[in-house]
Amino acid sequence: MAKEKKLVEAITSMSEDFAQWYTDVVRKAELVEYSGVRGCMIYRPYGYAIWENIQRELDARFKATGVENVYMPMFIPESLLQREKDHVEGFAPEVAWVTHGGYEELQERLCVRPTSETLFCDLYSKIVQSYRDLPKNYNQWCSVVRWEKTTRPFLRSAEFLWQEGHTAHATAEEAEERTILMLNIYANFCEDFLAIPVVKGQKTEKEKFAGAKSTYTIEALMHDGKALQSGTSHNFGDGFAQAFGIQYSDANNELKYVHQTSWGMSTRIIGAIIMVHGDDSGLKLPPRVAPTQVTVIPIAQRKEGVMEAAGALNDRLVAAGIRAKFDDSDKSPGWKFSEQEMRGIPLRVEIGPRDIENGQCVLVRRDTGEKIETPLEGIEETVKALLEQIQADMLAAARAHLESHISDAVTYDEFRDAVENKPGFIRAMWCGDEACELKIKEDTTATSRCMPFEQESISDVCVCCGRPAKKLVYWGKAY
Amino acid sequence: MAKEKKLVEAITSMSEDFAQWYTDVVRKAELVEYSGVRGCMIYRPYGYAIWENIQRELDARFKATGVENVYMPMFIPESLLQREKDHVEGFAPEVAWVTHGGYEELQERLCVRPTSETLFCDLYSKIVQSYRDLPKNYNQWCSVVRWEKTTRPFLRSAEFLWQEGHTAHATAEEAEERTILMLNIYANFCEDFLAIPVVKGQKTEKEKFAGAKSTYTIEALMHDGKALQSGTSHNFGDGFAQAFGIQYSDANNELKYVHQTSWGMSTRIIGAIIMVHGDDSGLKLPPRVAPTQVTVIPIAQRKEGVMEAAGALNDRLVAAGIRAKFDDSDKSPGWKFSEQEMRGIPLRVEIGPRDIENGQCVLVRRDTGEKIETPLEGIEETVKALLEQIQADMLAAARAHLESHISDAVTYDEFRDAVENKPGFIRAMWCGDEACELKIKEDTTATSRCMPFEQESISDVCVCCGRPAKKLVYWGKAY
Repeated sequence: MAKEKKLVEAITSMSEDFAQWYTDVVRKAELVEYSGVRGCMIYRPYGYAIWENIQRELDARFKATGVENVYMPMFIPESLLQREKDHVEGFAPEVAWVTHGGYEELQERLCVRPTSETLFCDLYSKIVQSYRDLPKNYNQWCSVVRWEKTTRPFLRSAEFLWQEGHTAHATAEEAEERTILMLNIYANFCEDFLAIPVVKGQKTEKEKFAGAKSTYTIEALMHDGKALQSGTSHNFGDGFAQAFGIQYSDANNELKYVHQTSWGMSTRIIGAIIMVHGDDSGLKLPPRVAPTQVTVIPIAQRKEGVMEAAGALNDRLVAAGIRAKFDDSDKSPGWKFSEQEMRGIPLRVEIGPRDIENGQCVLVRRDTGEKIETPLEGIEETVKALLEQIQADMLAAARAHLESHISDAVTYDEFRDAVENKPGFIRAMWCGDEACELKIKEDTTATSRCMPFEQESISDVCVCCGRPAKKLVYWGKAY
Repeated sequence: MAKEKKLVEAITSMSEDFAQWYTDVVRKAELVEYSGVRGCMIYRPYGYAIWENIQRELDARFKATGVENVYMPMFIPESLLQREKDHVEGFAPEVAWVTHGGYEELQERLCVRPTSETLFCDLYSKIVQSYRDLPKNYNQWCSVVRWEKTTRPFLRSAEFLWQEGHTAHATAEEAEERTILMLNIYANFCEDFLAIPVVKGQKTEKEKFAGAKSTYTIEALMHDGKALQSGTSHNFGDGFAQAFGIQYSDANNELKYVHQTSWGMSTRIIGAIIMVHGDDSGLKLPPRVAPTQVTVIPIAQRKEGVMEAAGALNDRLVAAGIRAKFDDSDKSPGWKFSEQEMRGIPLRVEIGPRDIENGQCVLVRRDTGEKIETPLEGIEETVKALLEQIQADMLAAARAHLESHISDAVTYDEFRDAVENKPGFIRAMWCGDEACELKIKEDTTATSRCMPFEQESISDVCVCCGRPAKKLVYWGKAY
């Protein structure tokens, strides 16, 4: 018992210290390990397996819309990075520079890609000639580097994994369509696959991507009421095309600039999974993204026939396409329960001598703790249905949390009170002036998260300055 | 016709200039594009799709043996790289150095990983404590950087994609077993999936990996008779474990060093696919690795009903799980044929008005050029069987080429003659002295490729120096 107690005790409770709870879960669930390299983390097998599931699902959704994968160099020559003015200003302060190859100093410094707009633009300028070459819907899965000062696993690190899509289109309309299409793919993926509901909208000028005409975002709400930007989709218009000379001949043989987009989702989203679903026992994974969906745990495993029955039950689940694992180690059941809970495995199946006698087993849901005695007959279908139920219930729970953590503010006093006392999103009107965003951030630390697609008017005036309101904005503290 | 002729003419013939033929195929089949970054190439969608198929298949084969994927940082601090003496000597001359982050100079230089032994060792030294923690069978898919002076697409570039497996074991026997297991996985993968037969064996001391106790290799033979090292598997013994202090308590609570391996296959293997199977019409892909297995091409497509019939035929093939594509562009059939041939798509299906009338279509094999009139009834099964036949025939053809390009040399004159006049592997005895390897390389440019597992004695003395022979060696010019 002492050992079991230790495992559970080792986690700080969420209510006591949310940041420490997060760090504890990340380490105890063996998602990552810190590396000796400043700001870089190691994705351990369990953490990486979650990313592999995310990749597989997102990649299939991308490809279903005609996206093709490519791979671009990880280095960007300094002169290429400087081609688009806003872009280089946004990224230069946080890139890593390669200055030497072998024993020789390079003639031109290379930065390790913080994002690859410039490389894709350079490629498109070479391979796009005619309207017949359009659209180009390219994506790559890779790692990028941003020299961050303070880092936290998944949320902010010097190197992180992501995908970055870069497209080129004949018309502005088509580019806008692709930008919104990809934002919707991200939003649907979060809801369907990760059980994370999101708010969709447009970033303000101040918050948009360096070089973009407009940036769209999905914002998720963490358990502590802070927002996490979970995916972005940018419409570049023809700004990059002009800077890089990406032109095509249209059907009338006239030279035109292409219109471009880019969109990305990163390993940050694993941070969202942890902070949306987790609890004081550890991680809670929605079944669709869980590397292991079911752990089969024998009870009184030294009793005759128990290991055989548990193993056979596990085999049946695996044969039915369920990602089940049999914990046949010599640890105590209590220890195994704690491990399964810490790792967020959605369902555990307990089977002991009495169950075998009765032709049944006990299912225990990770999300609710509910225990269900179930006949072994038809167990495959029972477990499959229950996993779907867990997936749906986790989304519903997260949605209820999101909806109960949105408050409206009409006056600045209401706004300040909400930031202090009502964790979550604050809906408030805005005049459109960046000065008000800056003042709000300085006064409250809250930032504009997005201007939601579904606009309404909850007041005629800006919550900050009292001038006429232009937009409804979701505000909040954010990661 | 002029345009079609141009497409075909644009390729240099293999017999005229093999190196130029290779470059032409790589570009014309749209596998890669040169980038503006020195020594780095862009993997275009078709080239990357081949790599994705390789990844999917290899990854499944790895996982079936208990391998787990992880992701390590792309940077290695200089002090960490220097921990194992032989290793740093092998790699330091060809690494890229990061010296600045943002506007600040780093306190310690970081190299961009040329390979990740040092990072895995650092991790294992932290997470391995007990024999219960072993084995660790970790792998990562990533890109690595080696500052090469001269580069060629796939074969040699400053940045390339690969997988690197790194394992830690309790005993020397287990490490050796894993080393050989992975070599066999590579060899079987090449034969089954890529239709490339290989020679398996051990590298000499001179040719082994920096820091390894022994290196095993698979060597494939290109169409021009030159060898290509296609995958390697290294047994490190406990050398790295001692340098990095990776120890575990065994069952008797005694501290022991772990025994380690590493093994890798890279995008070089795509170069092998091109040079083993290609011909003067372009690429030739074995069906299992081909992103597109079948192209359906309508003949006289403006005639009524042709496009519909061709589209319906394509749909049937896709529904049957065949990777088929319908070329419904407005190009001429001849142009479409050239494109399908250039891209190495294993089978094309032609269907025109006369075929439709007769309830048939024409299958044309890319590997042999054979044309087969086939009833539309049961076309799914016919095509599936034919793709399997093509796969088998391509392996048989490559094997026949390999076997007919191995010659034996007993005297040094025979050896020199073989290097000059008999492209391929040369089997010759060796005394075990590095001086003979160096002399042979200087005299002939041939290098020792491997000491095959199946040893035999074809002479009592070293082909170079005449002293007693110790090993049969495969020699050859190599990429």
